[in-house]
Amino acid sequence: MAYQDRILACNNGSRENYLPFFGRGQQLGWIRKDRLERLSGFPDIFVVGGQQVDLHAALFDYDSATAAVDYALRVMADEGLIQGWRDERYAVAERFSDPAVFSIERAGCPFLGIRSWGFHLNGYVRKPDGLYLWIAQRAHDKPSYPGLLDNTVAGGHPEGLTLAQNLIKECAEEASIPAHLARQARAVGAISYLYESPQGLKPDQMFCYDLELDESFTPIPADGEVAGFYLMPAQEVMEIVRDTDRFKFNCAPVLIDFFIRHGLIDPDREPDYVGLCEMLHGAPPV
Amino acid sequence: MAYQDRILACNNGSRENYLPFFGRGQQLGWIRKDRLERLSGFPDIFVVGGQQVDLHAALFDYDSATAAVDYALRVMADEGLIQGWRDERYAVAERFSDPAVFSIERAGCPFLGIRSWGFHLNGYVRKPDGLYLWIAQRAHDKPSYPGLLDNTVAGGHPEGLTLAQNLIKECAEEASIPAHLARQARAVGAISYLYESPQGLKPDQMFCYDLELDESFTPIPADGEVAGFYLMPAQEVMEIVRDTDRFKFNCAPVLIDFFIRHGLIDPDREPDYVGLCEMLHGAPPV
Repeated sequence: MAYQDRILACNNGSRENYLPFFGRGQQLGWIRKDRLERLSGFPDIFVVGGQQVDLHAALFDYDSATAAVDYALRVMADEGLIQGWRDERYAVAERFSDPAVFSIERAGCPFLGIRSWGFHLNGYVRKPDGLYLWIAQRAHDKPSYPGLLDNTVAGGHPEGLTLAQNLIKECAEEASIPAHLARQARAVGAISYLYESPQGLKPDQMFCYDLELDESFTPIPADGEVAGFYLMPAQEVMEIVRDTDRFKFNCAPVLIDFFIRHGLIDPDREPDYVGLCEMLHGAPPV
Repeated sequence: MAYQDRILACNNGSRENYLPFFGRGQQLGWIRKDRLERLSGFPDIFVVGGQQVDLHAALFDYDSATAAVDYALRVMADEGLIQGWRDERYAVAERFSDPAVFSIERAGCPFLGIRSWGFHLNGYVRKPDGLYLWIAQRAHDKPSYPGLLDNTVAGGHPEGLTLAQNLIKECAEEASIPAHLARQARAVGAISYLYESPQGLKPDQMFCYDLELDESFTPIPADGEVAGFYLMPAQEVMEIVRDTDRFKFNCAPVLIDFFIRHGLIDPDREPDYVGLCEMLHGAPPV
């Protein structure tokens, strides 16, 4: 395997089987064609056309759109079409900084192909023999990707918080990293990918953070989502990413970006170094 | 102005007025349509079709292709169609790591829309009050972009050297940075852009390097290409990049990438943070 394959695995989505979903002039999502018939059963909410689906124009403000979409999603969840309701609200917009057109239950995002945002943080330690990374292992009873390896801290982006606030919250909850340390985390870029799961299309964007930690600090699982943390030499992490699928799929590109930014991948030796950089930051349209 | 505008300025090229140029199954360049007639005057070298231009199939090896293209370029340079002959050889390939299909005089690259590679290095100093960057000012008698600000060291990639070798060479020539320091430079990614100049299309890719320098070290111009070096607070460089065109156009994206990787741009405040990341690494086809 190669790093390229790991990034391709995050970009397994094709827009062929989907129609774009628009609301208030923004492209907000992608609707799978086999869901059009069911959605046309909510004609006051979803206007299903031949080329696109539109949020009904009468839902012209945040509150009415939020309430209407929520109603439809709850009906379809009761019908078993949407699984894993979490009672977590995500903002729906074309760009992260745009005002939300409406908000949505997190489990509804892939059903409507809504872009979601989140952050991934790599905690690392500089030792005399090189960089080490704090790798999390996901809890074995976690519903999604149990037991797989993960970045030190990661989380989806809930409505109403800034990235910095969410990062501090998740650092405490997942890894017992105190706020004064979490505040030292450095935003270092963002990766985009277009992933297709049985639930639908995920045109996600993840903000990447680095946090240099002192050798004396050890992250400790706090909320039961993490089984344990392991301090691994970056060279070993590189091999695991490249040669195995032990990491959750979307942690691999975050790590590859880390390897590139920290000079661990040599452009004189990596056959498609520029291609890696391009793939990591590819721009899947919402 | 915004950072986005600086990146757009590097991506002013459109492929509309060009035909793709193929050689031995690889896409090697882009030929401007108003040059097709002249190129068809070399029927044993350039096969001009309606949809593309092909390197003649008889030029099946590196040496014959190199000699033939060189002959045509010299004829056209004598006719005044190609300016600024430098006697520098660039390798021609679809990807940096691919074996070269032929080599070409550097001045011929934009004439045939050949991708060229190079590196840009940002030397920086960590002070108690933040990061500082060593900014070069280009010599006032330099033929290209005289007097503009530039990254600490930058250079096109000549045939036959590795990136590491070229970096050490240029660090010495342009900034008197000794090899033992230059070797500490860290590859941190690559940026791509599609620039159109009066000479033709430049689908360039630049490898980016960071070099952390001690406060006691001062780069010194050595080869007359640099008028002087200035240690500027990163915050000041950010303002110059954003609000002025004092930097050579393709230094701006390298600096914006530096600002992002070093956490100097805040994703909670920059309206299109993800878009910036995408634009920097966009994938212009050769």
